[in-house]
Amino acid sequence: MSPNAQDRPDFFVRHRELLEQSVAATQGRGYWTPYPESPSTSVYGERTPAHGEAAFTGHIGRPFELPGHPGTGVVPATEVSPYGFPLGITYPRVAPDEAVAAARSATGPWRDAGPDTRAGVAAEILARLNAASFEIAHAVQHTTGQAFIMAFQAGGPHAQDRGLEAVAYAWAEQKRHPASARWSKPQRKGGPLALDKKFTPVGRGVALLVACNTFPTWNGYPGLFASLVTGNPVVVKPHQGAVLPLAITVRIARAVLTEAGFSPDLVILAAEGPGERTAAELATHPDVRIVDFTGSTAFGDWLETNARQAQVYTEKAGLNTVVIDSTDDYQGLLGNLAFSLALYSGQMCTTPQNFLVPRSGFATDDGVKTADDFATDLCAALDKLLADPQRAAGTLGAIVNDGVRERLAEATAVGRTVRPSTSVAHPGHPAADIRTPLVALLDADADAEVYTREWFGPVSFVIGTDSTEQSLRIFRDTAARHGALTAAVHSTSENVLSEAEQSALQAGVHLSENLTGGVFVNQSAAFSDFHGSAANPAASATLSDPAFVTGRFATLQSRRPAPAEESTHV
Amino acid sequence: MSPNAQDRPDFFVRHRELLEQSVAATQGRGYWTPYPESPSTSVYGERTPAHGEAAFTGHIGRPFELPGHPGTGVVPATEVSPYGFPLGITYPRVAPDEAVAAARSATGPWRDAGPDTRAGVAAEILARLNAASFEIAHAVQHTTGQAFIMAFQAGGPHAQDRGLEAVAYAWAEQKRHPASARWSKPQRKGGPLALDKKFTPVGRGVALLVACNTFPTWNGYPGLFASLVTGNPVVVKPHQGAVLPLAITVRIARAVLTEAGFSPDLVILAAEGPGERTAAELATHPDVRIVDFTGSTAFGDWLETNARQAQVYTEKAGLNTVVIDSTDDYQGLLGNLAFSLALYSGQMCTTPQNFLVPRSGFATDDGVKTADDFATDLCAALDKLLADPQRAAGTLGAIVNDGVRERLAEATAVGRTVRPSTSVAHPGHPAADIRTPLVALLDADADAEVYTREWFGPVSFVIGTDSTEQSLRIFRDTAARHGALTAAVHSTSENVLSEAEQSALQAGVHLSENLTGGVFVNQSAAFSDFHGSAANPAASATLSDPAFVTGRFATLQSRRPAPAEESTHV
Repeated sequence: MSPNAQDRPDFFVRHRELLEQSVAATQGRGYWTPYPESPSTSVYGERTPAHGEAAFTGHIGRPFELPGHPGTGVVPATEVSPYGFPLGITYPRVAPDEAVAAARSATGPWRDAGPDTRAGVAAEILARLNAASFEIAHAVQHTTGQAFIMAFQAGGPHAQDRGLEAVAYAWAEQKRHPASARWSKPQRKGGPLALDKKFTPVGRGVALLVACNTFPTWNGYPGLFASLVTGNPVVVKPHQGAVLPLAITVRIARAVLTEAGFSPDLVILAAEGPGERTAAELATHPDVRIVDFTGSTAFGDWLETNARQAQVYTEKAGLNTVVIDSTDDYQGLLGNLAFSLALYSGQMCTTPQNFLVPRSGFATDDGVKTADDFATDLCAALDKLLADPQRAAGTLGAIVNDGVRERLAEATAVGRTVRPSTSVAHPGHPAADIRTPLVALLDADADAEVYTREWFGPVSFVIGTDSTEQSLRIFRDTAARHGALTAAVHSTSENVLSEAEQSALQAGVHLSENLTGGVFVNQSAAFSDFHGSAANPAASATLSDPAFVTGRFATLQSRRPAPAEESTHV
Repeated sequence: MSPNAQDRPDFFVRHRELLEQSVAATQGRGYWTPYPESPSTSVYGERTPAHGEAAFTGHIGRPFELPGHPGTGVVPATEVSPYGFPLGITYPRVAPDEAVAAARSATGPWRDAGPDTRAGVAAEILARLNAASFEIAHAVQHTTGQAFIMAFQAGGPHAQDRGLEAVAYAWAEQKRHPASARWSKPQRKGGPLALDKKFTPVGRGVALLVACNTFPTWNGYPGLFASLVTGNPVVVKPHQGAVLPLAITVRIARAVLTEAGFSPDLVILAAEGPGERTAAELATHPDVRIVDFTGSTAFGDWLETNARQAQVYTEKAGLNTVVIDSTDDYQGLLGNLAFSLALYSGQMCTTPQNFLVPRSGFATDDGVKTADDFATDLCAALDKLLADPQRAAGTLGAIVNDGVRERLAEATAVGRTVRPSTSVAHPGHPAADIRTPLVALLDADADAEVYTREWFGPVSFVIGTDSTEQSLRIFRDTAARHGALTAAVHSTSENVLSEAEQSALQAGVHLSENLTGGVFVNQSAAFSDFHGSAANPAASATLSDPAFVTGRFATLQSRRPAPAEESTHV
């Protein structure tokens, strides 16, 4: 079935320069991306947007085909667009045991192919994912509820960036040691003792990707590509609400693997029907040796406790915090934070939840502002940002699931609501449930039980504190205990910024300082920003760094005496 | 108490070249060592051996002093030399909570010092350990039962090599990312968006080293130095039978830390009295975030299951296997394997246990040899090697504890004993319990229950198989299921060697091929040989590789807008 070896495309040769640039970018940590984030036709071509939309529309109401995929039958449709219609797509059904067995049996030639070949195949998969960005954007929009532009950027090029970043780390780490070396130890008498040694990176075993509902590709690609490039087959278990973006990904990966002469079963889709719970079964399968998970703290903790046979990488939930001490650009601060809250209606793991503000006020270029003033002004900034319905619909998102709706209802009863969440009509999708952020005022001492929980969704709290000192203490304590994926501080004082940096180091959280312009705390750029950290409970891994890839493979060694004629003449 | 900052020695400047050479050596993987393995006076100085012995003798029967060490009182003496006398040394007593609290409170300035300073301090500690190699050698001999030369080499320079190797990986991994970077993203209109970013490696928390009885320094230094250099304080919990080598190490580390202006409590000795069991209590302390352990599979598995708050690195037990298919140097093969069994009376985690040999025989330059023939010839080679009592005492070791004696007694009852274990008198230590290896003949099919257990100590089995094919299958299955730290193969066929290499990759074990000269399967040279592998159950880590250090720290980031005048002119 597969073409002859000599006819196969050499994807490593094709992408070698890109891979080298990627590795350099992870080391330089400046701005770099090979995948344009603009969905402009001048970048992606005149007919590409229409083709992508047609490809997406073609999936609706039909079985999704994965030629040669293991298993039998189909799982019933589970996806409903948050913009108000069922996708009605069925997927191939494969039992957990079958999926793991098929993945495992595909491993041998993939291991023997070595890191260069594997990185080349991965880069080709990413190139084709990039070409499919419009199809994927529609799939992401109608599974996550993201507005189209965000679905395109975060679900397409930015996710591809994060995938390539993982490829770069995985490739570079496997090449830290030479493929072979001569060891030659001088002896007091006669020639040296000499051995020839071989070093082979070997994957840990079958990898499982348990993906999330809100960012199936952005959060999924790093684990998928890190495992694949380090020699492991990957079973992809999508969230029931967001299968299509990963099904498209699996289809592309399988096609490239086949062209390169490998078994397509190195990437398997393990979709599940309504009410099925296969993630736990897959994650504790004895042959599953790597698990990547993004989602709830409860299931993340369960995996860390129970998937003992595997290396487990989790991104869970946390209390994203903003400490406000002072500013010389109050309007910039308000506008920047309002956008951070509005984006995708607060359904990002990086959206700020807790704003710690001195009750008695903080200095600004517009005079002293109390916590009350700040809450009022932040809400006004939100109102202004969202005044135009078209623009609001393009910034906010549709509510992804009932869990978010329930938390939003619950949040109306805590503290003092300064701004209620309101509904916004989408011009093209009247049935979409799009909401604006709710902002409530709390007290640092009285309301600790409220703000030390995560309220995933468009819910944020302005929390009055005694002082910036108390704010920093609460930030350190809550982040260290409950975790955080982002933190921010605003201050005109270098001393306070330095204390905030020390607090962030102690709490184990990445920190953004004085963002008042076009960069937002919830944004994280591949190749420059680290996303998440094992240093606090919100995650057990960083996207991406060497620790994210080194546990996925071992370097095994063999050694034998060097040929005698050489070893005696050194 | 500590000297002024300007008077402090700059250990990084002093050792920078050594550190750079070390990193280069980990990458080249040829022969390299900065610490001479010869205990010759021409290397270490005329009076150094006598000074070292006097230092050791000075410890006997006295309290071991660690100035300023936390805790109160002393723990009673627990150490008895396997060469036949009690050491009678008491050590400072510190409760687990006290030890962890003291270590934790020393962390801040150590974190802020950065990787260069930390690596410099570690290199200075190693330099002083090297200067104390004779004192340490006597301490290792009289706690482990190793003969003096081996105690000197494995406990001194080779352990220091492994320590420096861990320093090199820890230092290099922390410097993979720049300390700061400018991110500058072009915009369609106006100047770029620009942020200045800082990247800071931060240790995970308090590290615990649970050391073993047989190689307290060789197996202990990698974790100790990897944790320390990545910013973590270390609590050293020695085995009750082998405290002194690590107490000397802790004393030297604390002195260097103090000279460098840091708290000595970055390295704490947590000795325990007879019958106390503090390792489990320390390992599950919520502030202990890293555990390194060498020892039994039972306690290693317990740690992996229960020390959930920590990153756990274990080296446990396994079934070290030799597959014999054919040879063109039968005498070389026998001599090499006999030495491997005799060294330290088989009490190495790397000593071969299972020899898989075709029952019907294998080809040699001396004709076909059956499994029976081979067992007889191997025993004859052992008899020849150990014929001279002086030489035998210098090669073998004293039995380290009753567990080994009990297994040796039990082994007389399994299979057919081809060579019983015998006692050897030590000229200088008449009370030493020195034993020669026992060799028994087993059958691959009938005796699987016997040879799929680990028999740590001077016990090895020649196991008759149907064929090399069966031998390789048993090797793969037993190593994959029960683990192995070493494996070896002898064959004149490139096909068989290639199959053995594939089997070793599948089993996840490092392989030695056709060793017939002066290199032995149980030897593992730092900077060139990987020791252990997370790819099989005998260990969860390799000494050393990037995976051994990357889990010990996180790189945390802060970012802020770049100054306006610069960001608009890029």
